[in-house]
Amino acid sequence: MSYILGIDGGGSKTICILMDDTRQVLGRGEAGASNYQSIGIEASLKSIEYAIHMAVNEARKITNVINIEAICLGLAGVGRTGDIEVVKNLVKELQTSKLLLVNWDLQPANIVIYNDALIALVGGVGHPVGIVVAAGTGSIVFGRNHQGETKRVGGWGYILGDEGSAYKIAVTGMQAALKAYDGRDISTSLIDAFIEHLGLNSIEDLIEVIYRRGWGVKQIAALAPIVDLAAASGDEVANKIIDDAVQELVKATSTVIDAIFSLGSVVEVVTTGSIWRGRCKIHERFTVSITKKFPYVKVIFPRYEPAYGAGLLALQRLAL
Amino acid sequence: MSYILGIDGGGSKTICILMDDTRQVLGRGEAGASNYQSIGIEASLKSIEYAIHMAVNEARKITNVINIEAICLGLAGVGRTGDIEVVKNLVKELQTSKLLLVNWDLQPANIVIYNDALIALVGGVGHPVGIVVAAGTGSIVFGRNHQGETKRVGGWGYILGDEGSAYKIAVTGMQAALKAYDGRDISTSLIDAFIEHLGLNSIEDLIEVIYRRGWGVKQIAALAPIVDLAAASGDEVANKIIDDAVQELVKATSTVIDAIFSLGSVVEVVTTGSIWRGRCKIHERFTVSITKKFPYVKVIFPRYEPAYGAGLLALQRLAL
Repeated sequence: MSYILGIDGGGSKTICILMDDTRQVLGRGEAGASNYQSIGIEASLKSIEYAIHMAVNEARKITNVINIEAICLGLAGVGRTGDIEVVKNLVKELQTSKLLLVNWDLQPANIVIYNDALIALVGGVGHPVGIVVAAGTGSIVFGRNHQGETKRVGGWGYILGDEGSAYKIAVTGMQAALKAYDGRDISTSLIDAFIEHLGLNSIEDLIEVIYRRGWGVKQIAALAPIVDLAAASGDEVANKIIDDAVQELVKATSTVIDAIFSLGSVVEVVTTGSIWRGRCKIHERFTVSITKKFPYVKVIFPRYEPAYGAGLLALQRLAL
Repeated sequence: MSYILGIDGGGSKTICILMDDTRQVLGRGEAGASNYQSIGIEASLKSIEYAIHMAVNEARKITNVINIEAICLGLAGVGRTGDIEVVKNLVKELQTSKLLLVNWDLQPANIVIYNDALIALVGGVGHPVGIVVAAGTGSIVFGRNHQGETKRVGGWGYILGDEGSAYKIAVTGMQAALKAYDGRDISTSLIDAFIEHLGLNSIEDLIEVIYRRGWGVKQIAALAPIVDLAAASGDEVANKIIDDAVQELVKATSTVIDAIFSLGSVVEVVTTGSIWRGRCKIHERFTVSITKKFPYVKVIFPRYEPAYGAGLLALQRLAL
């Protein structure tokens, strides 16, 4: 029996799926962050090792002999040749781990490293053709067609891009509240919503919160639900912010469709990330807008998680 | 003879003007940054002390007896009561300085602390009535009328606002270049301009520059001239960015006019900051747009520097 590992290594957690060659999941493990560019190689290795360990522990309830014949890692921010070398070395280290009670039987060709967008696409759709519209803290739209051609739009991070992301929605919401406070723009319930949620004396105290407390991108992005709720309650300014975010994501998706999909072919578009769980019908707005433009597009929620997608990509490699 | 000190304490330098009660400048000194929220009280005190020292040195060529009877400090980011207390303590420390060869004769009421926008307004116009449109790394519009009422719009910093600032122009320029590269928006010469200026292999390397090298707000803002030059060369995308920046500044200025100036009264609007030195006629665009809306507005370049404005405010206090 062949076994493979699919790993989703992200900025807040790492997930490992242990799968056999019939796509049966035998174990699943979770651990902390593994984006080595932020937390370093050692910490990243520890997280990945522990996630595998948890998955193996579960699988060992079913079988004692676990030969790992392929591994696919999907990692945020991995793209360049240098990154791939770093991750390959990391896989070498894993193979010497005493914690992991598995037999490694890895041909070099069966060590596969991709960016997080591809494994999200493959997990979300269930096979490696379609488009993923990932909009959480950051945003990226990534597609792959039947010929294996890929196209990425966005994913440039919170300063250079991330249009339609939770970070952008939160920041634009705060900017709109301050513009209304200045008297520059129409009034909005966002002022009171931010004051209440953050326990401020005045909306001016946003300066204190955002700059002096040194809030990071994730903490700011976590304020997006305030804009979402205001929009769901009918606030005009908040609804404009949501509509603009939707239009950015529609534009990015359209660019991917135009680039690699032929007119009239059915394309599955899977939405992943926190913003789609909003109460202001953001998913519905996106679906209406993109299918108006491309009637043959089918917008879906993820069928499987990204780690499962990584598993499918490992199996695909094994089958070659 | 009464002497006063006017101090402009900023994020990159500190300037001190030593003036007599006939507005005659006897000395001028410069030193490093003095925004204590970033660099700490000790470093801030050192900069202010050294700037005064340099001004006093110059003045002592003219007179040996220098009685300082008033001091006005205009400091970036100072607004709250807590800040004012901090700065008052700092002035106390100055009065015990052995470096400064002056006689301190300061009544508590003659220690005046303002934010940097007011001293820029007073220096720029030459008296304390009008509007300053400050657009450098950040942006703020601040006005004061004959009755002494003030109105501030903007100045919320690089995350929460700073519309029309060099930072915003630079970031929007990079975003536009990446959108064009993605195929999301029309092509622009900004792609090649950023590649050439930053010595990149591809515009994708902006990620390397902006995130991995840990560039700060000032370094990013210093890229605004790339957008300015592209606009001056006729690039459509760059010109749209400049026009949007101008419209933000016009809107902010209009809000100040509507709030504290009566219809038909002549208002002097002084422009300060790096963006006005652009080659793409940004100053002309702003002037045309604001005078179209308010024909009695007169847009001027600064008559004096902010430290001189601080000096005038110290004299004004002395005259009370």
